[in-house]
Amino acid sequence: MDQEFDIAIIGGGPAGYNAAESASKTGKSVVLFEKNELGGVCLNVGCIPTKALLFSAKVLDYTSNAGKYGIDCLPGSPQSARIFARKNKIVKKLTGAVSLKLRNCGVTVIKAQARLDGKENDLFRISVQDGTCFARNVLLCSGSETVIPPIPGLKEGLGSYVLTSDMALNLNSIPQEIAIIGGGVIGMEFASFFCSMGSKVTVIEMAQQILPGFDSELTDYLQKTYSKKGVRFMTATRVTAVSPSGISYSSDSEPQGFLETPVSLVSVGRRPNATALGLDTLNVEMDRAAVKVGLDMQTNVPGLFAAGDVTALSMLAHSAIAQAQVAIDNMCGTKSIMQYNAIPGVVYTNPEIAQIGLTQANAVAKGLDIDVRKLPMTYSGRFQAENEMENGLCKVVLDRRTNLILGAQMCGNMCSEIISVIGVAIKFGITLPQLQQTIFPHPSVTEILKEL
Amino acid sequence: MDQEFDIAIIGGGPAGYNAAESASKTGKSVVLFEKNELGGVCLNVGCIPTKALLFSAKVLDYTSNAGKYGIDCLPGSPQSARIFARKNKIVKKLTGAVSLKLRNCGVTVIKAQARLDGKENDLFRISVQDGTCFARNVLLCSGSETVIPPIPGLKEGLGSYVLTSDMALNLNSIPQEIAIIGGGVIGMEFASFFCSMGSKVTVIEMAQQILPGFDSELTDYLQKTYSKKGVRFMTATRVTAVSPSGISYSSDSEPQGFLETPVSLVSVGRRPNATALGLDTLNVEMDRAAVKVGLDMQTNVPGLFAAGDVTALSMLAHSAIAQAQVAIDNMCGTKSIMQYNAIPGVVYTNPEIAQIGLTQANAVAKGLDIDVRKLPMTYSGRFQAENEMENGLCKVVLDRRTNLILGAQMCGNMCSEIISVIGVAIKFGITLPQLQQTIFPHPSVTEILKEL
Repeated sequence: MDQEFDIAIIGGGPAGYNAAESASKTGKSVVLFEKNELGGVCLNVGCIPTKALLFSAKVLDYTSNAGKYGIDCLPGSPQSARIFARKNKIVKKLTGAVSLKLRNCGVTVIKAQARLDGKENDLFRISVQDGTCFARNVLLCSGSETVIPPIPGLKEGLGSYVLTSDMALNLNSIPQEIAIIGGGVIGMEFASFFCSMGSKVTVIEMAQQILPGFDSELTDYLQKTYSKKGVRFMTATRVTAVSPSGISYSSDSEPQGFLETPVSLVSVGRRPNATALGLDTLNVEMDRAAVKVGLDMQTNVPGLFAAGDVTALSMLAHSAIAQAQVAIDNMCGTKSIMQYNAIPGVVYTNPEIAQIGLTQANAVAKGLDIDVRKLPMTYSGRFQAENEMENGLCKVVLDRRTNLILGAQMCGNMCSEIISVIGVAIKFGITLPQLQQTIFPHPSVTEILKEL
Repeated sequence: MDQEFDIAIIGGGPAGYNAAESASKTGKSVVLFEKNELGGVCLNVGCIPTKALLFSAKVLDYTSNAGKYGIDCLPGSPQSARIFARKNKIVKKLTGAVSLKLRNCGVTVIKAQARLDGKENDLFRISVQDGTCFARNVLLCSGSETVIPPIPGLKEGLGSYVLTSDMALNLNSIPQEIAIIGGGVIGMEFASFFCSMGSKVTVIEMAQQILPGFDSELTDYLQKTYSKKGVRFMTATRVTAVSPSGISYSSDSEPQGFLETPVSLVSVGRRPNATALGLDTLNVEMDRAAVKVGLDMQTNVPGLFAAGDVTALSMLAHSAIAQAQVAIDNMCGTKSIMQYNAIPGVVYTNPEIAQIGLTQANAVAKGLDIDVRKLPMTYSGRFQAENEMENGLCKVVLDRRTNLILGAQMCGNMCSEIISVIGVAIKFGITLPQLQQTIFPHPSVTEILKEL
């Protein structure tokens, strides 16, 4: 091989493939290494396949609730083989599109595990099994993997009575009963999916609330909604052991509890994939398991950048894409820094949750002088027309003096799209009163922002 | 009565009730006259009730298409009595909320037809059947009514073989077959509703395309979509007579055509309600049937303002609300003018259409130097995950030199909410490349804006 490139990218997820496209458009020669499928976790076993499954679940929910909209309908029957096949078809189409896009951009894609191997004449040396190549700049975006915590019986059960999210995406049938260990975003999306599919679902979360980091009014709302749908929640509960017959746990009220369950999904977090990158050959500085970077996404080694989950700074596909763009800008001579004040987060449950920027609790902890506006989503006429059984919630956290928007939290369908209206306002320094002068369509759910 | 107010508002639709609330919050004494129900056409027989019906239709569509998402389901059976009852419940709730809001604001609401009756001591005199009151400023927002064009047999058939949209909102049963005279927004929304409900629908439109004023690529897309669903379209076709047995029409290819249909819906437009307002007592200048106003929403009579459909400038509820706010600002001493460059328009068909600002055709007609970006909505991974059978379309019209957004046109679900992201960009002078630096959630349909 022994080829030389301007930029080498290790990892073909959202950070990697977007960076490759962007860099190649500026005329740089780019090589991208991916040992698995292009698209990374996001396209193959994350964002996209879960959304495909969750939308099948939503359609099923509509058939179950059709009566509330005046439609007589026997509840639909989910056909798991077809639901998963549809998901696979979408994944294939999107990963195929990534592959085609990179080819059209002239990016060299190498399907192999790549490893840094020191520097030579100012160039980074990168080894793959059958050769070496050189690059002036390197972007590390090797992603993350599911954490399997050291709980007795957990690792041993993988693939039989314990599933990771990757495994749950490729089931042959829907379990009648499932316990979800970890009520974060991934856990709650799977809880939502299995609940709609008819499974008896229990969510066990170590923290005091599900979805740690999300506004507690939102999470309370969501928990109540799913409790009504039959999901059992055990918060402030630590799993102590897992066996084929169930889960041993400990909480203040039940120091030695046991939950019978034939299968558990483990979703307690993700860990950066940084161990196989040869980081030691360059003495790359780490922050625990993550590659440490500055706001310019550069590591302590000049010319070596990282983006996405491997930095553990914001484990979201859209953050990875933004970080990767910052890295490419800096490699190409345009000074750029990453801004974390307007990063949205969405949980695609039904109803969905979206938030951006600071929560009320974050702002209070920072000692900021804030004003919080909130309303049920039913203040929107469209929301009422389209959501039986839901009240929803919309909160906006303002700087009291300037009325600048510091953050927003919403629960209710379409908030995953509406949150971007707030995102634009935060990014461009538009105050809430200014934003409210925008003419929103009537009726739309976005109009709720005028009512705050 | 003989009471004196700072501001009198004639008409309790979106312009009127929002103006009343806004004015009362500044400390003004406000009287609002409404001869029918508070909420106007919008809440009672327009935006809101149609959206309630269309969402029942959408749920029905999901039951019919559930198989495409892996859900076995017998198509639902629409129960028209319950569908219309649900619509009525939502209308009642929202009009009740308006009533309560006005009471809480201290607005005097008078359920009567009000009429201007000249001026006295610098105050406008307003007569109602049982008295008179006086106001320093008046806002006319008496709305509009369905146009019944002078086609033989049309007026005669009203309530039997001819329906207005008001009548169509209160049916006892769904007609097996219906012809829609006028393929504008109202016509297409009813076409969509009846098509989902199982009616055999024909749309007859005088213009060359359905939805005149909308981008022709969008309307072509929508027409093709509904043609596949079984709707018959007859564009460039003029209705010459209507009878209990059907519609006589004339087109280039069929100068003397006849369409058998038991019932027709007439939706060829709306006309300002300006004749009963006593405008002659003040020599108010008119623009054909509409009250003429400047950008400050003031008529030729100082202190007399108008907003909403009665001005015929932009017959949309959100325009009416914005115009009314401009009027109130000016009454209260804050100089304000109405801006028409970022007014969205939505058609709540399935899929829905949304547009804002200039279309490509508008921009070309104005001789602007533009750049048009467009993509199918399937470039969004979320769109693919949630929309079987649809490609959608997203177009953005840019000023070529500045990259400022002049307009956008979208077809595909959720575009009615996403269009507001563009609305904020237009209002605040954010260019497309700047907007694309916003971090949108992944996956969301809004992300399509980054791909353009």
